[in-house]
Amino acid sequence: SSKKGGAAPVKEFKDIMDGLKSIYQTKIKPLEQAYSFDQFHSPFLTNADIGAKPMVLLVGQYSVGKSTFVKYILEKEYPGCHIGPEPTTDRFVAIMNGEERVIPGNAAAVSTELPFTALTRFGASFLSKFQVSSLSTPVLEDVVIIDTPGILSGEKQRLQRGYDFTAVIEWFAERADMILLLFDAHKLDISDEFKRAIGALRGHDEKIRVVLNKADMVSGQQLLRVYGAMMWSLGKVVQTPEVMRVYIGSFWDNPPQHKDCEMLLKAEQQDLLNDLSTLPRNAAVRKINEIVKRTRMAKVHALIVSHCREQMPAMFGQSKKQTELINNLEGEFEKIARQHQLVRGDFPDPNRFKEKLAMFKIEKFPKLDKKMLALVDEALGIDLPKLLSDFPQTQAIVPTIMQN
Amino acid sequence: SSKKGGAAPVKEFKDIMDGLKSIYQTKIKPLEQAYSFDQFHSPFLTNADIGAKPMVLLVGQYSVGKSTFVKYILEKEYPGCHIGPEPTTDRFVAIMNGEERVIPGNAAAVSTELPFTALTRFGASFLSKFQVSSLSTPVLEDVVIIDTPGILSGEKQRLQRGYDFTAVIEWFAERADMILLLFDAHKLDISDEFKRAIGALRGHDEKIRVVLNKADMVSGQQLLRVYGAMMWSLGKVVQTPEVMRVYIGSFWDNPPQHKDCEMLLKAEQQDLLNDLSTLPRNAAVRKINEIVKRTRMAKVHALIVSHCREQMPAMFGQSKKQTELINNLEGEFEKIARQHQLVRGDFPDPNRFKEKLAMFKIEKFPKLDKKMLALVDEALGIDLPKLLSDFPQTQAIVPTIMQN
Ligand SMILES: Nc1ncnc2c1ncn2[C@@H]1O[C@H](COP(=O)(O)OP(=O)(O)OP(=O)(O)O)[C@@H](O)[C@H]1O
Ligand SMILES: Nc1ncnc2c1ncn2[C@@H]1O[C@H](COP(=O)(O)OP(=O)(O)OP(=O)(O)O)[C@@H](O)[C@H]1O
Ligand SMILES: [Mg+2]
Ligand SMILES: [Mg+2]
Repeated sequence: SSKKGGAAPVKEFKDIMDGLKSIYQTKIKPLEQAYSFDQFHSPFLTNADIGAKPMVLLVGQYSVGKSTFVKYILEKEYPGCHIGPEPTTDRFVAIMNGEERVIPGNAAAVSTELPFTALTRFGASFLSKFQVSSLSTPVLEDVVIIDTPGILSGEKQRLQRGYDFTAVIEWFAERADMILLLFDAHKLDISDEFKRAIGALRGHDEKIRVVLNKADMVSGQQLLRVYGAMMWSLGKVVQTPEVMRVYIGSFWDNPPQHKDCEMLLKAEQQDLLNDLSTLPRNAAVRKINEIVKRTRMAKVHALIVSHCREQMPAMFGQSKKQTELINNLEGEFEKIARQHQLVRGDFPDPNRFKEKLAMFKIEKFPKLDKKMLALVDEALGIDLPKLLSDFPQTQAIVPTIMQN
Repeated sequence: SSKKGGAAPVKEFKDIMDGLKSIYQTKIKPLEQAYSFDQFHSPFLTNADIGAKPMVLLVGQYSVGKSTFVKYILEKEYPGCHIGPEPTTDRFVAIMNGEERVIPGNAAAVSTELPFTALTRFGASFLSKFQVSSLSTPVLEDVVIIDTPGILSGEKQRLQRGYDFTAVIEWFAERADMILLLFDAHKLDISDEFKRAIGALRGHDEKIRVVLNKADMVSGQQLLRVYGAMMWSLGKVVQTPEVMRVYIGSFWDNPPQHKDCEMLLKAEQQDLLNDLSTLPRNAAVRKINEIVKRTRMAKVHALIVSHCREQMPAMFGQSKKQTELINNLEGEFEKIARQHQLVRGDFPDPNRFKEKLAMFKIEKFPKLDKKMLALVDEALGIDLPKLLSDFPQTQAIVPTIMQN
């Protein structure tokens, strides 16, 4: 995949994720388990959760070249790929690393190995229009790509889908790390359903990159007009004053039709590939940050629970003491914060915590396990910062959206 | 001025205007005068009214290159022109054909030879910031150019002007045939006052052309970003869904800084010059149409008044008859329409007409002058259509705004 220089994603992503998994499993999860962190806050993380790859979502009118774009990035077609001038892709396809095969939507949605169980909420008629296509290619070691059915103009087409297209786009947009919004320079058409889809992306503006595809199909001057018209319309639809980053190019391997902007398009294509290649790195940084946040929560949690445990009498009056502790929980938080030099902002909401705590027998929790705590402090103080500093600190980590 | 091919405006404009003046003076005005058309509808046209040249208005931030653009078009500086990196042009300048000189605003506003008497309404502090600069150059045989002071950011600057800048822009926009809205590719900045100025152009969208100037000062990719950002912002400010026509170029004679878009910019510049060169032609067509409309009104007017005149008794009961005619004016309109095969839509508003007619003694009007009427019919049936058909019917007459 050396052919497209920047497209080769940074090799460190998998290594860093492996490091993160091992830190979590050996130093953080034991403390979470000892004090039932999952019951109070959020489920324990699986290796699949931590290693989940950055997701790239493609959105655009039919025939804009979404599936061809995927082929360009992968340097081959994914299993079940259809490319053609008519509306072709009729389903959502999650393209992932693995042996070459197609997993139908219903099977994919029940597999706990795959991050798609939540899709069952969109119903059987959606699942019959969803599939996972796996194949083995370097790019997929670092990202998951979501190809989607083309957006069609006209209300009738929309109703025939049998599921809520906009809601599905919203679900994927929420989880995606980058959203590529494709337009066709050769046939610019911003339908009402496309506008609704753009509306569904609201709140994720910083993830969106606009791609003006098939740019070589028109002359330089026509391209200017189309690009201007697109920006004019987008400015009206998208509420933010910040201009979206646009890449103008022709994402397939055919020779260009018009050559007057050849250099420009090449430079733009390379920029988009570079942008994509920063995804794993940025996703890794974001994940480390999330784990750091979670670990601090888990530590505070363990200190609270073990502090309460220490107050419990050995045999009699346990229930009375539990009620007393819960009633005075804010006071106990003060004491813990003072004793361990923590800021009150790191503490959970006392009322929600009281409700949860009431469901346990406090005396059943272990006392403070100093060794476990030491491991967590090590993760926070040494291991996680080291993982971060292993990155060469390039500007790639800075969100690129406003660099124009 | 052959150097800029398309810039040389069509030579026929003056000839056509001369033809129009002569048709009006010899065949139409006599009828208008005989039946006091001016008292009922609008003043008689002067040769200056008919021959008034198409007006091009320049609007933009300071230092965007407005005055340099004028120099580029004229191929020389106009008297009193200032060009420089600081805010330079401090006044509105009407650049017209004539011997090389400057006419200060107060003098210009009292000259009935010039179309600026209405500017007195903006007050003395405005007139001290207005001037006419005349010089002799081919382009000015066909157009008048209005150079304007640059728009400045900041409320303070706005207040210091001492006159209502936006209202003045509005006045010129109303009269202009083309409005060039200039932006600087090198320093894009859409200030609040600029937005207000764009607001003042509302309703004249079809006259507006956007010029992205100094386009060679940045690389091709940067130019794309700037252009996109401009369209994004303009789309938010301008209400119409139709995209404004944009010309990207560098309107001076210096060699380009960046050469990666040289061909494109050249083509764009040429397109703008072509667009400008269609102005006289389009203005001439519009004027002929206006005169046709006016002549039909004048004919109907003459038929009404002379018809009423014919009903008047020779000596007694004139006043009674006049009242009767006025009261039954709608009925008389019916009769006239039937007799001369006219449609009722060509008739004036009866109530306004009654009011005016009441101020005259109908018996003082001449009876229908068949010779005058024949002249008007000749103008409508032969002379004016001939003037129109003298144009080679190119698409230049079609408004170019939506041809992208
Ligand atoms: N860069 C390009 N330049 C010109 N034509 C292209 C380009 N990319 C794709 N095409 C052509 O456009 C057509 C549509 O391509 P493709 O099937 O990839 O679009 P799509 O967006 O996936 O459509 P659908 O939404 O129907 O799945 C095909 O005929 C393809 O060969
Ligand atoms: N096409 C161009 N490329 C680069 N620089 C330019 C170009 N046109 C003009 N300039 C430079 O920009 C500066 C401002 O030009 P000019 O005075 O014509 O602007 P202006 O819009 O008339 O400003 P003002 O509103 O202050 O009158 C000058 O230094 C001029 O030489
Ligand atoms: Mg497809
Ligand atoms: Mg100036």
